[in-house]
Amino acid sequence: MRRDEAHAIEIFRRAAGGVSSAVRLGVGDDAAILHAGSGRDWVVTQDALVEDVHFRRRWMDPVSLGWKTMAVSLSDLAAMGAEPKAAFLSLALPLDVSDAWLGALAQGIRRCLVTLGEGAVLAGGDTVHSPDRLYLDGVLMGTVATGCAVRRDTARAGDRLVVTGSVGGAAAGLHLLERGMVRPDGGHADLSALSSSGSPRERWAARRAWARHVRPRPRVPQGRMLSGVASAMVDLSDGLAGAVHALCDASRLGAVVWADRIPVDPALRRLAPHLSVDPVALALTGGEDYELLCAVPPDRLPALPPRLAGVTWTEVGTLTGADAGRTLMTNGGPEPLPRGYDAFHTTGVEK
Amino acid sequence: MRRDEAHAIEIFRRAAGGVSSAVRLGVGDDAAILHAGSGRDWVVTQDALVEDVHFRRRWMDPVSLGWKTMAVSLSDLAAMGAEPKAAFLSLALPLDVSDAWLGALAQGIRRCLVTLGEGAVLAGGDTVHSPDRLYLDGVLMGTVATGCAVRRDTARAGDRLVVTGSVGGAAAGLHLLERGMVRPDGGHADLSALSSSGSPRERWAARRAWARHVRPRPRVPQGRMLSGVASAMVDLSDGLAGAVHALCDASRLGAVVWADRIPVDPALRRLAPHLSVDPVALALTGGEDYELLCAVPPDRLPALPPRLAGVTWTEVGTLTGADAGRTLMTNGGPEPLPRGYDAFHTTGVEK
Repeated sequence: MRRDEAHAIEIFRRAAGGVSSAVRLGVGDDAAILHAGSGRDWVVTQDALVEDVHFRRRWMDPVSLGWKTMAVSLSDLAAMGAEPKAAFLSLALPLDVSDAWLGALAQGIRRCLVTLGEGAVLAGGDTVHSPDRLYLDGVLMGTVATGCAVRRDTARAGDRLVVTGSVGGAAAGLHLLERGMVRPDGGHADLSALSSSGSPRERWAARRAWARHVRPRPRVPQGRMLSGVASAMVDLSDGLAGAVHALCDASRLGAVVWADRIPVDPALRRLAPHLSVDPVALALTGGEDYELLCAVPPDRLPALPPRLAGVTWTEVGTLTGADAGRTLMTNGGPEPLPRGYDAFHTTGVEK
Repeated sequence: MRRDEAHAIEIFRRAAGGVSSAVRLGVGDDAAILHAGSGRDWVVTQDALVEDVHFRRRWMDPVSLGWKTMAVSLSDLAAMGAEPKAAFLSLALPLDVSDAWLGALAQGIRRCLVTLGEGAVLAGGDTVHSPDRLYLDGVLMGTVATGCAVRRDTARAGDRLVVTGSVGGAAAGLHLLERGMVRPDGGHADLSALSSSGSPRERWAARRAWARHVRPRPRVPQGRMLSGVASAMVDLSDGLAGAVHALCDASRLGAVVWADRIPVDPALRRLAPHLSVDPVALALTGGEDYELLCAVPPDRLPALPPRLAGVTWTEVGTLTGADAGRTLMTNGGPEPLPRGYDAFHTTGVEK
């Protein structure tokens, strides 16, 4: 028996909920109709999540998966300084996905959009059959004032490198999941390995790291606040080191990053001995934190309030001419800045 | 060894080619930036193609697959009366996809956009790894004058049903491919079963049917021309009967379709005896012709020129009140209009 695709679409139509002044026509026609208003540009991003590559269903409850599907693309909008307006989702569904599971996925999408999407709604997409693996492909569209999107190729030598929040927490969460040290059961992490021996702080750290991995909170309002001062910006989907390289590659610059200034996630610091990892190394190369990295001219730094909509920021380095290369300054002296996170190589999801 | 995703992206960045006044920033940043100009709405559509569900790689050369990936979404834009502006493509790639194959896929995308996309360029997307099957998800964005997109829920009783071009050719092509009667080798169909016994007309028919299936030509300029007279419009991705039902469902109407007026594709008429199919039944229920079906108020019919940018149109029926149901008038009398094409049930691609 085949799934009734119309039924799956209906589940998402209901989950889309709400209305948006930007979406003139949503799910149900050949295409959606959007309006930005004059003086606005559209910013568009697309991100695919493939089962057994980017996630495992047994590691990730459907609410979290729906949440993350939207969050990864919201983070791209944040990195452009854009305001989210509409989401689209293409789903290739295997037969073993139940309606209840699908409803929970839709609920996660809705929750993420309601919490972080600033009024953006699911405006369309596609639902097809997949012989075995689940594929999700999300598209997020947002707007910026014409010409005001923050690119990655416009940083200049001398700009300071500023990162929001903390880094490495999501990578710690992935390590916990890989090792069976947290149980993904609809948002209730059970710290099996840590729960008997672990202290309350370790249980808190494990829960935080798990949440950083499965329910990332892209920095949407922070991106808009930073867009006023940043000369260039990227998100940390591929880790802090990867983001620095991406900014330097696009802007043809070098960089110095100070290891001791990296805002290592407190959960990672707490869990590092249990995971036998170097917290600074994982904070640099672990991906999926969905924080923002931006280049800020030094004279504009004082204009930044200490918190951006409740989130701290940290100056972690300086951009230099391209000839100076990319350096990590450690207590032991300068080292080459490691290459970034690569989901294919380091998550260990696909063996 | 893992594929270098950056390399795959570069292949597509090159293939995207050209520039477009609507695309301010294309492939390479966190997101693309688009501008419509004032007084324009954006029309957005997303379509997924999954290997072994929607296509088989051995049936479809990569140029055709790239072409079709764009064509299916261009057809949705056509059905809204929109002007294509930007394309996005998410690709989940198995390791057995070579760079040459990927380059040919990108070439097919480019060819389709250049031929039918009216200046639209590939503006972004995502490239990820897939453990086995190839998965493509295309997004097409176009613009219409604000408020002028043609919806499917705005038809009225008494409107005539008008279909562009001919129908059933793509379904005949799929039958040929399924039965090994054409060979998919980069556009050169070899009519193995028909080549010895078949007449030149049968070889022509087989080549035409093959092309209708693998290189569909969505009716983009025709959609814009029809948008001036149509009260509602849909595309024929799911077959003529499916399109009539979709229009009636959305507009809450009934319909009468005259079987003898259906513009059955001449290739299907020629091949039907070889395929042991009823040409009218296949023309009604076979999908993927990517023609347009619209509802036109009778007083506006005279305003339609006999050809729309070189493509004929045919009046195939009339919309009625919902109570009258949906009827197919045949020589043998009235019959219920069959339900539409369902890619899952009828293509036979997935067993």
